[in-house]
Amino acid sequence: MSTVRSTLTDENRDITAGALQGALVDLLDLSLIGKQAHWNIYGKHFRSLHLQLDETVSTARNAADTVAERAIAIGVSADGRASTIAADSSVPKIEAGQIADTEVVSLFIEAYTAIISNMRERIDATDTADPVTQDILISITAELEKQSWMFQAELG
Amino acid sequence: MSTVRSTLTDENRDITAGALQGALVDLLDLSLIGKQAHWNIYGKHFRSLHLQLDETVSTARNAADTVAERAIAIGVSADGRASTIAADSSVPKIEAGQIADTEVVSLFIEAYTAIISNMRERIDATDTADPVTQDILISITAELEKQSWMFQAELG
Amino acid sequence: MSTVRSTLTDENRDITAGALQGALVDLLDLSLIGKQAHWNIYGKHFRSLHLQLDETVSTARNAADTVAERAIAIGVSADGRASTIAADSSVPKIEAGQIADTEVVSLFIEAYTAIISNMRERIDATDTADPVTQDILISITAELEKQSWMFQAELG
Amino acid sequence: MSTVRSTLTDENRDITAGALQGALVDLLDLSLIGKQAHWNIYGKHFRSLHLQLDETVSTARNAADTVAERAIAIGVSADGRASTIAADSSVPKIEAGQIADTEVVSLFIEAYTAIISNMRERIDATDTADPVTQDILISITAELEKQSWMFQAELG
Amino acid sequence: MSTVRSTLTDENRDITAGALQGALVDLLDLSLIGKQAHWNIYGKHFRSLHLQLDETVSTARNAADTVAERAIAIGVSADGRASTIAADSSVPKIEAGQIADTEVVSLFIEAYTAIISNMRERIDATDTADPVTQDILISITAELEKQSWMFQAELG
Amino acid sequence: MSTVRSTLTDENRDITAGALQGALVDLLDLSLIGKQAHWNIYGKHFRSLHLQLDETVSTARNAADTVAERAIAIGVSADGRASTIAADSSVPKIEAGQIADTEVVSLFIEAYTAIISNMRERIDATDTADPVTQDILISITAELEKQSWMFQAELG
Amino acid sequence: MSTVRSTLTDENRDITAGALQGALVDLLDLSLIGKQAHWNIYGKHFRSLHLQLDETVSTARNAADTVAERAIAIGVSADGRASTIAADSSVPKIEAGQIADTEVVSLFIEAYTAIISNMRERIDATDTADPVTQDILISITAELEKQSWMFQAELG
Amino acid sequence: MSTVRSTLTDENRDITAGALQGALVDLLDLSLIGKQAHWNIYGKHFRSLHLQLDETVSTARNAADTVAERAIAIGVSADGRASTIAADSSVPKIEAGQIADTEVVSLFIEAYTAIISNMRERIDATDTADPVTQDILISITAELEKQSWMFQAELG
Amino acid sequence: MSTVRSTLTDENRDITAGALQGALVDLLDLSLIGKQAHWNIYGKHFRSLHLQLDETVSTARNAADTVAERAIAIGVSADGRASTIAADSSVPKIEAGQIADTEVVSLFIEAYTAIISNMRERIDATDTADPVTQDILISITAELEKQSWMFQAELG
Amino acid sequence: MSTVRSTLTDENRDITAGALQGALVDLLDLSLIGKQAHWNIYGKHFRSLHLQLDETVSTARNAADTVAERAIAIGVSADGRASTIAADSSVPKIEAGQIADTEVVSLFIEAYTAIISNMRERIDATDTADPVTQDILISITAELEKQSWMFQAELG
Amino acid sequence: MSTVRSTLTDENRDITAGALQGALVDLLDLSLIGKQAHWNIYGKHFRSLHLQLDETVSTARNAADTVAERAIAIGVSADGRASTIAADSSVPKIEAGQIADTEVVSLFIEAYTAIISNMRERIDATDTADPVTQDILISITAELEKQSWMFQAELG
Amino acid sequence: MSTVRSTLTDENRDITAGALQGALVDLLDLSLIGKQAHWNIYGKHFRSLHLQLDETVSTARNAADTVAERAIAIGVSADGRASTIAADSSVPKIEAGQIADTEVVSLFIEAYTAIISNMRERIDATDTADPVTQDILISITAELEKQSWMFQAELG
Repeated sequence: MSTVRSTLTDENRDITAGALQGALVDLLDLSLIGKQAHWNIYGKHFRSLHLQLDETVSTARNAADTVAERAIAIGVSADGRASTIAADSSVPKIEAGQIADTEVVSLFIEAYTAIISNMRERIDATDTADPVTQDILISITAELEKQSWMFQAELG
Repeated sequence: MSTVRSTLTDENRDITAGALQGALVDLLDLSLIGKQAHWNIYGKHFRSLHLQLDETVSTARNAADTVAERAIAIGVSADGRASTIAADSSVPKIEAGQIADTEVVSLFIEAYTAIISNMRERIDATDTADPVTQDILISITAELEKQSWMFQAELG
Repeated sequence: MSTVRSTLTDENRDITAGALQGALVDLLDLSLIGKQAHWNIYGKHFRSLHLQLDETVSTARNAADTVAERAIAIGVSADGRASTIAADSSVPKIEAGQIADTEVVSLFIEAYTAIISNMRERIDATDTADPVTQDILISITAELEKQSWMFQAELG
Repeated sequence: MSTVRSTLTDENRDITAGALQGALVDLLDLSLIGKQAHWNIYGKHFRSLHLQLDETVSTARNAADTVAERAIAIGVSADGRASTIAADSSVPKIEAGQIADTEVVSLFIEAYTAIISNMRERIDATDTADPVTQDILISITAELEKQSWMFQAELG
Repeated sequence: MSTVRSTLTDENRDITAGALQGALVDLLDLSLIGKQAHWNIYGKHFRSLHLQLDETVSTARNAADTVAERAIAIGVSADGRASTIAADSSVPKIEAGQIADTEVVSLFIEAYTAIISNMRERIDATDTADPVTQDILISITAELEKQSWMFQAELG
Repeated sequence: MSTVRSTLTDENRDITAGALQGALVDLLDLSLIGKQAHWNIYGKHFRSLHLQLDETVSTARNAADTVAERAIAIGVSADGRASTIAADSSVPKIEAGQIADTEVVSLFIEAYTAIISNMRERIDATDTADPVTQDILISITAELEKQSWMFQAELG
Repeated sequence: MSTVRSTLTDENRDITAGALQGALVDLLDLSLIGKQAHWNIYGKHFRSLHLQLDETVSTARNAADTVAERAIAIGVSADGRASTIAADSSVPKIEAGQIADTEVVSLFIEAYTAIISNMRERIDATDTADPVTQDILISITAELEKQSWMFQAELG
Repeated sequence: MSTVRSTLTDENRDITAGALQGALVDLLDLSLIGKQAHWNIYGKHFRSLHLQLDETVSTARNAADTVAERAIAIGVSADGRASTIAADSSVPKIEAGQIADTEVVSLFIEAYTAIISNMRERIDATDTADPVTQDILISITAELEKQSWMFQAELG
Repeated sequence: MSTVRSTLTDENRDITAGALQGALVDLLDLSLIGKQAHWNIYGKHFRSLHLQLDETVSTARNAADTVAERAIAIGVSADGRASTIAADSSVPKIEAGQIADTEVVSLFIEAYTAIISNMRERIDATDTADPVTQDILISITAELEKQSWMFQAELG
Repeated sequence: MSTVRSTLTDENRDITAGALQGALVDLLDLSLIGKQAHWNIYGKHFRSLHLQLDETVSTARNAADTVAERAIAIGVSADGRASTIAADSSVPKIEAGQIADTEVVSLFIEAYTAIISNMRERIDATDTADPVTQDILISITAELEKQSWMFQAELG
Repeated sequence: MSTVRSTLTDENRDITAGALQGALVDLLDLSLIGKQAHWNIYGKHFRSLHLQLDETVSTARNAADTVAERAIAIGVSADGRASTIAADSSVPKIEAGQIADTEVVSLFIEAYTAIISNMRERIDATDTADPVTQDILISITAELEKQSWMFQAELG
Repeated sequence: MSTVRSTLTDENRDITAGALQGALVDLLDLSLIGKQAHWNIYGKHFRSLHLQLDETVSTARNAADTVAERAIAIGVSADGRASTIAADSSVPKIEAGQIADTEVVSLFIEAYTAIISNMRERIDATDTADPVTQDILISITAELEKQSWMFQAELG
């Protein structure tokens, strides 16, 4: 139940809500593992990746905010609690402790690949359900694919 | 094991590491429930609290970054993963779904009270173990106690 | 007749021009009633709504500028004169004189609902006629739906 | 009736309110025809006048805001709705459709002349009624007369 | 006695000096009670008023600086010491201790009313004595009357 | 061959790559002739067009950067070398030497018309191949059509 | 003869024009001797006065610009040529060559005194002729009297 | 009685509250005499000290704000009214009227000496009572001792 | 006689001083006629030239400041008084009163041509006398020749 | 033929024009291959070089603009079209397709070496022909040699 | 002997002065070797370390300024002359000439380790002597330990 | 031996390297004694000179960075270590301890005189050896001679 009247039909609202909640969880988890690696990374490329990861975090946080507020705007709530992220995220797990720079690159290529694949499905899912939401998901995906390239380019 | 040689004795490093890891988890959880409420809040005071909660989030994120990097600097790693936050946080849980503005005020008074109480203990614990870390914890606590006042003042 | 050669067929240009002129009038009227309420509002929530309404006005003015210049760019003129707004706007009327804060919230929920409903039709209408214009209308609608949520959330 | 107690006598308040409401309507109409010409203008001097008209709009909007808030501050309401502007403005009408750059210059010289003439009367009217309001009207008139010169200088 | 030669006759200088010294004391006291309320306020509207009061303080401090420097410029000294404010201010007293938000609104409406009434007399007094000083007092009064409206509008 | 794994099928990647490479060459050439005219222009409208052309250049450079990086992100390389631009651009040639202001206006209307026509085809081509790329091309086209209007409006 | 139609009667325009032209010449000369002293000054207080004189110059240049543009706006021309300044300025002459800091202070007290005395007459002269111009002259005089105090205060 | 629950024991809260209230009164008085001297000073070093005193005022105002909000945050109220400052300040009195630059230097050395001595006691008093408050007092004292040096260095 | 010991021989100092004083007078006169035209210009290109002339003035003022301070730095004084400018400037005279836009263009081409010719001689004169001064004169000439082009390009 | 009268003799103008046109083509090509590498680079040092190359591009673009406008200012035209760059550039060619980070470093060392060698000749050529142009070429060469060092330092 | 009266006992002042003078010399030397390496470094990680070393320098310079001014504020002088640094610094020496990136990392880890060890002793030494100075040393040490981690993390 | 290939002949490189290394040492020493005086100065002109000396330091640091990086760019290393400065600087020594304002002025006139004299020789030495380096030295000398004047002007 929501204080906001949806401008969508119930069916379209449910489809769109599912896409947005999924994106929210993935993006928040990306922001958390981005910081986790930002802190625990070491290796000859430490400084460059330490800075690059803050761009990952910044993009992920802004995108998460956008999709969460979009969910509210179409009449559903958003769930970005730690336990929900821990349970529902499709982002690969990161081990505790220090992590070498080469491992960071591999890990984030995997993470971006997983999220982008889901985002592509969410873009398809919202095509007829809500073109306004779809446009938001497309913009976020463009940015994620750009960042994904930058990690892949570092594989050497 | 860490790439950073600690300037502390092993015992002092362990005490300090415990205080920092505890603070990290609490502050990250505060930033997540801050956003959760920022999105799902409703009520006559929606706009004012919506903005106030972004200050909560901003402070919590910056403080979390500071304590995590302090942990690395003393020769331990930092753990800010979603599952760790979900398991270890001392911040009271927030329900999923929409949340009324009056409930938000009560909830955050509770949350600040819990974190501040822990921060006070961490200040004591690091007094002899590491005055540099203690000084960082004191500054964060000052800011948390200021924000806690602002929510208490809204009880009316 | 226009000095600008349209990149659209005559039929698509006419469909698109209709959507843009309709959006222009609605957005300009939203900016005018936004200021009207910004000035004449009173009540316990005066200050918060006084500021929120300036965001309404700012968004509406910028969006109106965008759609008017888009109309010119596809080879038609734009009509944003007071008499045209008074005659053609689909935004609910606002009474002269002072207006209570609670009435302001209701009034703007009604206004956003009316405009958004029209914008959704314009998005459909331009789907095949001109995807470039459609993309502009989608972005404006996303912002309007976000602001609409914020007034609905204040209903309490 | 107003929530604000006037610091003026009833007679002085009524005189002052009349001057302010008249100025408000003229300035809002100036901002609307400023944008109308900004969009629909063409001719060799398009770009220069397109930019100059945005200064007209910006000045008119700010001045309108100032006089409307002054009206509220002396205990009356302000009316800046589209229908009121359409009915009461003393600014010459502008035709719909494209408009040549030379016509724009003539039209705005006429518009400034009409408004300035009214502003001069409003300055006289408020001389004893309310020197605080008069000072505001004087500042706005100085700016309008400066902009009027700039259009006249372009007559060649 | 002053190091600055006045450009006014002795009589006009004395009249003007009286108006400026009176304004100085009132404005400094407004800045002090503005901060007093900014700190000690509580209630559901805490945050909004907490911020609004800082605008009160900022305006009062700048205006006090302007009138004090104007006094020196016409060849007299300015007295803004705590004991002078405590003795001469025409601003209503504020009680020590916490203060509810609704009381704050009432108190500041009273305070603005008292100061504005005095400012109006000072504007009259300096009309022939010194039009340069009068113009300064008029500008300050315009700002005070605007802020006074904003507190009155919150009475609901 | 690329270090970046495409998220598209081979066929869709090839279609999209073609659209992006075509856009890149056109936009880079637009930036080069924009500067060429910016330097060599003369005539009564010199200054206004000299400034307007720098906006052409700035938009073209940013858009070129965006489409080139998009090409890399979908797993192909980008070719923006002088010889490639000279060989493949669909932008009309500009003569060496000084160029009159009226000629500049005609030339750039022609240039924008040619590029926009190609961009419209690229938007169609990527509709099913890659909606993320399509969205980028739509945004660039909106900006190009706006700038095209501004040169057409100057024909007088 | 002017391209700008005056909003004043011929008599009032002539009175106002005289006041503005007089102010223009004085202010431009103040800006020139301000720079002359800024360059040639020496003495223990060199640096402080070197900086203070740039504030003199900055104020004088801005005020000169304002009064010259006001002259044009009321339908007369403005004359700020070197020969006119040399012939008509009422500012005391400054000797060529180096100048001691104490002499600078005396010289500028004299210069401000002369200009302010003239400005006071111009304020009187324009009182009924043109209140809009008068308001401009009053603001400039307030600033000149403030700067005059600062030089007088340095006499010790 | 306070709306804020203190995180300190009653005894520690009372000790800390005393230190903060004392600091508040001293700092506010410093800001008032800083402005008093800023306005009424004369002498060869007028300009340099006029500017230096504004730094005194700015530091004192910010520090006062910090200690007052800290008092509220630990559960007591703050008293910064003119009559309280006049009665309780430990800052030496300043005479009304003009004041020579050399006297200003002596006076502020005295004022800083008195306040710093009290601040040192307050640092000691809060050592065990509240290390968070102590840290705030230490930072303010560091800044006051720096400014005190700058006045002492001017004794020549 | 100067308080500054020159780093040049007497002969080189005299040659350099002559070049700098000549440049100073020309540049100050350029700044004065730049403003004269900025105010009194009219014609279809009013706005564009009005703005362009302010760039002329800004460059001339900054360059004048640079050469005057260079003169002091090599041990001579600088003379930038109105009477000196009126007597010694090599810039062509400008008539009083309104001036058409086409005349402004011709006049400033003439003015730049005259000054640049002198600057070229000053560059030669200082070649062996003082390479530091020469470098300053070269930079100023580069800027003057660029601005001269822009007026010549407007001849059409 | 040019609308700008040269301040140089025909012979000096031709020598200078040759130097400037040569520099223009080299700098524009540097900006194009800078972007080409910025996009297509990969390898462990991707991010650092990706950013460094944007500094290459930014410097090259600004320097190209400066030399082109200098050419116009001395009375010749500038040719920066794609076909001219492709034909006349002395910068080594870059292959199409992806390019490894180590190759990028080698390639740009070669490119800078070639351009700097030409720039040194151009500095010599303009020594007597036009010292103003020479000074511009010297400044650009200083920056190019600095950037060249930074690529050479990365050879390891 | 000092113009500043210390707020400390002679014994505490001497202890504190020793800690501050030691810190000053170490920090200034760190800033000098930071620049030395910033200039002479080479290797594959040149650019990243070149930038990182400027952060080292910036931190060291600001911290040196803070401790030197703190020394003056407690009534002693500060000695930061080259010969003093050369004689008293505890920072390891750096060889003249070029230096490889890997050597730079080792060298600065050594340098930070030495300085931090001394800073820790200075924190202990000032604990009872002067808590205000101690707080300054603690803040600087926190920053040094953070930068030390970043070099250690690059060891790979 | 250097990683950077010089664009100069061996002889010219050695001459240029000598000039740059000499300038580096002088400028770094100027920055160190600038700070030394900035901290230890006292006297009636303390504040003005305290600020002026920070401009000395800022200029010296930037110039030192420029000449050191120029040395690397021509293929030699730069030596700015404390022991090198202590051994090779041509700047007069400054005594430890407090220093009166009048002594500071004399000392810095002496210091600037010594450095400028050396810079003039370095300008001559690099005239044929490397005009690019010479241009850099000329710009720095211009700034040093300007600052030298400002200290000389304070001799009174």
